[in-house]
Amino acid sequence: MVTRKECEARDRDDELKGFRDQFLLPDEVIYLDGNSLGPLPKVAAKRIQHVLAQEWGEDLIRSWNAHGWIDLPQKVGNKIARLIGAGTDNVVCADSTSVNLFKLLAAALRIRPDRKVVLSDTANFPTDLYIAQGLIELLGGSRELRLVETASVESEINSDVAVVMLTQVDYRTGGLHDIARVTQLAHEAGALMLWDLSHSAGALPVDLLGHGVDLAVGCGYKYLNGGPGAPAYLYVAPHLQDDIRPPLSGWMGHDRPFDFDQEYRPASGIARNLCGTPAILSLSALDAALDVIGAADMNAIRKKSQDITGLFMDLINERCGVFGFDLLTPNVPEKRGSQVSMTHANSYPIMAALIENGVIGDFRSPNVMRFGFAPLFLRFVDVWDAVDRLHGIMSERAWDRDEFKVKAAVT
Amino acid sequence: MVTRKECEARDRDDELKGFRDQFLLPDEVIYLDGNSLGPLPKVAAKRIQHVLAQEWGEDLIRSWNAHGWIDLPQKVGNKIARLIGAGTDNVVCADSTSVNLFKLLAAALRIRPDRKVVLSDTANFPTDLYIAQGLIELLGGSRELRLVETASVESEINSDVAVVMLTQVDYRTGGLHDIARVTQLAHEAGALMLWDLSHSAGALPVDLLGHGVDLAVGCGYKYLNGGPGAPAYLYVAPHLQDDIRPPLSGWMGHDRPFDFDQEYRPASGIARNLCGTPAILSLSALDAALDVIGAADMNAIRKKSQDITGLFMDLINERCGVFGFDLLTPNVPEKRGSQVSMTHANSYPIMAALIENGVIGDFRSPNVMRFGFAPLFLRFVDVWDAVDRLHGIMSERAWDRDEFKVKAAVT
Repeated sequence: MVTRKECEARDRDDELKGFRDQFLLPDEVIYLDGNSLGPLPKVAAKRIQHVLAQEWGEDLIRSWNAHGWIDLPQKVGNKIARLIGAGTDNVVCADSTSVNLFKLLAAALRIRPDRKVVLSDTANFPTDLYIAQGLIELLGGSRELRLVETASVESEINSDVAVVMLTQVDYRTGGLHDIARVTQLAHEAGALMLWDLSHSAGALPVDLLGHGVDLAVGCGYKYLNGGPGAPAYLYVAPHLQDDIRPPLSGWMGHDRPFDFDQEYRPASGIARNLCGTPAILSLSALDAALDVIGAADMNAIRKKSQDITGLFMDLINERCGVFGFDLLTPNVPEKRGSQVSMTHANSYPIMAALIENGVIGDFRSPNVMRFGFAPLFLRFVDVWDAVDRLHGIMSERAWDRDEFKVKAAVT
Repeated sequence: MVTRKECEARDRDDELKGFRDQFLLPDEVIYLDGNSLGPLPKVAAKRIQHVLAQEWGEDLIRSWNAHGWIDLPQKVGNKIARLIGAGTDNVVCADSTSVNLFKLLAAALRIRPDRKVVLSDTANFPTDLYIAQGLIELLGGSRELRLVETASVESEINSDVAVVMLTQVDYRTGGLHDIARVTQLAHEAGALMLWDLSHSAGALPVDLLGHGVDLAVGCGYKYLNGGPGAPAYLYVAPHLQDDIRPPLSGWMGHDRPFDFDQEYRPASGIARNLCGTPAILSLSALDAALDVIGAADMNAIRKKSQDITGLFMDLINERCGVFGFDLLTPNVPEKRGSQVSMTHANSYPIMAALIENGVIGDFRSPNVMRFGFAPLFLRFVDVWDAVDRLHGIMSERAWDRDEFKVKAAVT
């Protein structure tokens, strides 16, 4: 069994160890929820001070030019592009993941007007499914959202399919779709491929251009550490950019927004996917945060992610196996993202007790305990200590007693 | 002619004079662009410090509940509701004005499925027109955006019209539509009425419930002082709320977002109009900013707005009449919002010279000089000084010479 001392040694050898100090992290907390909300990069706090005191406070409206607010969606998009294997001017940052998904899904259905089906899996993050449902209803019902089990996705890709819409990392199990393979199958069937990278960007290398992905969206507040509700992003492959007819055709996507023409005319390239005025405070925090992860080697991130998730799973098996946990996350490192999930009959109160003890993970209905492992700030000893605290909690109490179930219902 | 001394006296008697100190305003600047970006309320800066250090930095993911992030769109919406004559739970704050307009316009066209026309005027803010164009194109072209001159709007409301979509204050001239009258005409014709309040909320009293308005949207970063790109808001009349089928059906508008169901089921009431995860930094700044304007009497704001816009127009006529300015803004106080616009053959370089001299207004293509008068922080002496500086600039230079036209082209 791995000892705490060995974990300390691995931390000393960790090539990413210098990054932890770039985050503000509360004392005594082991934060295993960076996959839901990344912690505050010190440079983001500093940037926001500047935005408040100087940009908004002092320079006011002039900051649209003087501090580059007007170009921020593209600038931030280009920083994200480097994390996901996209090129310059393939990505813009704006709005929420849900809104961006709506934009690209609507555009994709226009590019494949004769095909009826949006194909996705039942494991997709619900808001992605809701957005597809809402869009299809809006369009009058001639399209169909076809939901299949994850294992059946590949065999269900056929010539009815206009778009295959998937989230690369399963938000519950942490299981990974094979981007290369699914994208290729979609293209062989004449469908477009749309990936949601919310749980993968910043956690593992993504190669959108290399795999010929058509469209992608993702989230700014998870592994990118952009802050709560940070703006999201969208990617359009270069060869498709001029085919996009933006359904949300706001002025920021206009070719000449400050001419104040009465007719919408889309900007050339990726900028046409912008809509309203960007939320500068939130966008600036993300812009600064990206400089932290942008300085890290994505292969080193992936390697450490696999190491610490693997260590967590090993320690759970070794020290907590007797307590009735079932790991949901693939044991093969190449098949999982950067999280570990498990179930237990008393998942909810156990997670509540862990959080009380300073180990912050989260609970996903109906019975999933989910732990995210962000390699930039987590140490091997954190993994060891987290399992140690879980072991302590499980040893002290009789978790099969009814009192815990009652507690779950009222917390 | 009004003297500076008389302006000082009016400032001493101003019942809103206590508000100016609640803003961070740069020295030596007379800020006549609060209609484009409101200045920084000190309380908003303080709130953002708290969001950074405590909420995001220390409490992390727990802040969704511990600091009420999850309810912030409704909480902020309710604060805005009090400024626009709406009731509790009639307004939510989210996304951009453009995105919110898309949501409500799409919903309105479903509520009036047999009517073809969206009626608006050529003076509407361009992004509103673009959004309507994009939506209509998305829906396949069976609908029509009918654009008429402002003076013809009332006579063009007929039984073809599904929705009348107007911005209350003309962003160029500052002229006001009559909300009561146009709403009534729309209803008599069986159409829905959708108002964009971006240039009116916070600048003049609005009575949405009193006038029976169906739908409204508006902006958070103008007179509400929520910061650059602050989230926008939308209003739905109580009797229509359950008829809204949200086209942007994201998880935040789901009846039970944390059940992670596969099927979208809209929340009851106004919350169904939410979509993705809210941008907490930007939303928190707006939340704090609203406490400033929320403490002011809207009738006092309107009275002072009419006084200072009137003073500006009088002083322009008296002191700058010889320089060839043409006022665009209605002289009758009841017929204008809180801005004054004028044209000049050399508008662009004159505005640039004014800004260099610390009087910040803005320029709107092709030749409009626009000055916003936000009553919460502007003084009567500011108005006097602004005209005085303009008079100085106009007196010092020969603005009909070609060098200024050249300068305009390169600035």
